[in-house]
Amino acid sequence: MSTAPACLSHGRVTVTPALRAAVDRLDHRSRHQAAYHFGWITVGGAPTSADAGKAVRPALALLSAEAVGAPPEVALPGAVAVELVHNFSLVHDDLMDGDEERRHRRTVWKLWGPSSAILTGDAMLALAQEVLLDTGLPTAAPAARLLARTTRHLIRGQVQDLSFEQRSHVTVEECIDMAACKTGALLSASAAIGAVLAGAPEATVAALALYGDQVGVAFQLVDDVLGIWGDPAVTGKPVHSDLRSRKKSLPVSHALNQDGPLSDELAAWLTTPGEPGEPGELGEEELRRVADLIEGAGGRDWALAEATRRMALAEDALRGVKLDAGARDGLLALGRFVVDREV
Amino acid sequence: MSTAPACLSHGRVTVTPALRAAVDRLDHRSRHQAAYHFGWITVGGAPTSADAGKAVRPALALLSAEAVGAPPEVALPGAVAVELVHNFSLVHDDLMDGDEERRHRRTVWKLWGPSSAILTGDAMLALAQEVLLDTGLPTAAPAARLLARTTRHLIRGQVQDLSFEQRSHVTVEECIDMAACKTGALLSASAAIGAVLAGAPEATVAALALYGDQVGVAFQLVDDVLGIWGDPAVTGKPVHSDLRSRKKSLPVSHALNQDGPLSDELAAWLTTPGEPGEPGELGEEELRRVADLIEGAGGRDWALAEATRRMALAEDALRGVKLDAGARDGLLALGRFVVDREV
Repeated sequence: MSTAPACLSHGRVTVTPALRAAVDRLDHRSRHQAAYHFGWITVGGAPTSADAGKAVRPALALLSAEAVGAPPEVALPGAVAVELVHNFSLVHDDLMDGDEERRHRRTVWKLWGPSSAILTGDAMLALAQEVLLDTGLPTAAPAARLLARTTRHLIRGQVQDLSFEQRSHVTVEECIDMAACKTGALLSASAAIGAVLAGAPEATVAALALYGDQVGVAFQLVDDVLGIWGDPAVTGKPVHSDLRSRKKSLPVSHALNQDGPLSDELAAWLTTPGEPGEPGELGEEELRRVADLIEGAGGRDWALAEATRRMALAEDALRGVKLDAGARDGLLALGRFVVDREV
Repeated sequence: MSTAPACLSHGRVTVTPALRAAVDRLDHRSRHQAAYHFGWITVGGAPTSADAGKAVRPALALLSAEAVGAPPEVALPGAVAVELVHNFSLVHDDLMDGDEERRHRRTVWKLWGPSSAILTGDAMLALAQEVLLDTGLPTAAPAARLLARTTRHLIRGQVQDLSFEQRSHVTVEECIDMAACKTGALLSASAAIGAVLAGAPEATVAALALYGDQVGVAFQLVDDVLGIWGDPAVTGKPVHSDLRSRKKSLPVSHALNQDGPLSDELAAWLTTPGEPGEPGELGEEELRRVADLIEGAGGRDWALAEATRRMALAEDALRGVKLDAGARDGLLALGRFVVDREV
């Protein structure tokens, strides 16, 4: 039960019925669109089982209750809530980013328009809190508080992400903070919420939260490396995809903030106009040159070393407190599964 | 202290510092845009004091604590939270409805774009829960639960409102349900949340909630009458404004659901294409004719009688439970102030 695929599969099987029951409480349009987004129904409403994503966050939530010796059911409302918050942010982000597809299906805003995506996202966010607070558990309030604070951080991360696109210079610290908010905050809350619902001691909750934070930043570091040097056959994205969009990713910001001719050349490139598909778009040869510049300035090595360092901190955090050994192994396996991809 | 203007002014003075402190916790962009939306700063960030709205909901929240014998401070986080939820919905609704101005100032989406309005609204919604749960009060959880459920109803109301625009027929019951969700639910939560935070008995909370529900529907009935027959000098909207947009308001839906030639003519008019500013737009004479059709089919008399009936139910609810007399008078005065306008 401690391998990542087993934890994920167990998580999905446990959480899906509760998640569906929660979504059933929404108004008929939000319910329909949320059920479509989760991959349970077709656009027309027929039952289906499309790829609904890995559901890493609910699996973390269940394991975090087990880790402190509670039955996983204690974490169930927390698992549903973190998955709702994650998907609220996906539905709103898809609209803001203009993404027309997610997991090979059209996005909610693309199918039903911007207003529908706004309302369905809003409904999922409010529902997440309702699911937690409806339990009536004495630990529901601290869990709901954790989730509200996490949502504030998640939004802060998306605000930073959008603002970076309009800025010519971003520090490494700002990039790390953005990753910690946009990716780390909800993984952290997921890894802690089961323990909060189980009433675990503060130090244990803090260790689990730190674990999720570090895994989140490590994930982003690796994801950014893959966005530049990843094999399209593995990542499913075009080669150099993050360079095409001139994304100020972590390796790029590290390289830019070095002294020397390589970073000067990189800075000049970043401020050249030319979005994908527009005049000024870079050709394959130029993209390879930019990738080499970033690598030459140490961006790739730094990002991978930093990801390794953060994974070690994450694992130390889990080893520093008393946890159920099987659940700890599950958390460690899930973290490695999230971060360790073909780099 | 029991006159409506006195209650509103006291409410604003009490709540604004706490609301500002809450908004200060947001990321810098959401903070700036929320502060602008609330009328505290200019677009550029200079202090100002623009019209920030009447702040009916915070005043109701404070009175609802006083009504059950608690000091109004007990309700302060609830007052902040309901005002945040109200303004989350305004920022998102302005975007969905394409409204470019609110209280004679440009709207958030118009100034900073759709993504900013989505994120600032999301941030205000999450913050509302955080403010309540940060109190650590044992009554924070039921108050936060009330607010989450209310937000679900609010969204349901907006979903219905948007869907009515696309439908040729809407029943009176559906229209009333929409008003109860879109307007009643948050007034109801506002009138109850102070009592919930004060730990009042369930029957008292239910009476206060019923009061807010009925005031909300009565408000919508009167507002819809004003949208057709209101004096532009009083309403600040063009004459027949709701007819120009062919809104399926409460008097219209009542008139449509009567048998007879008047409602047939009305139905034919409603399905004629022609938005304001487009070909097919109705002239002044036709608009007067449509207003007369609705009045002839009883739409105006019914709406006003129904508003009166609901206000009586609202006031009966408050008189049916033991409440502090001064606070009850304040609640009654606020309800009448909200509903009784020049009709």
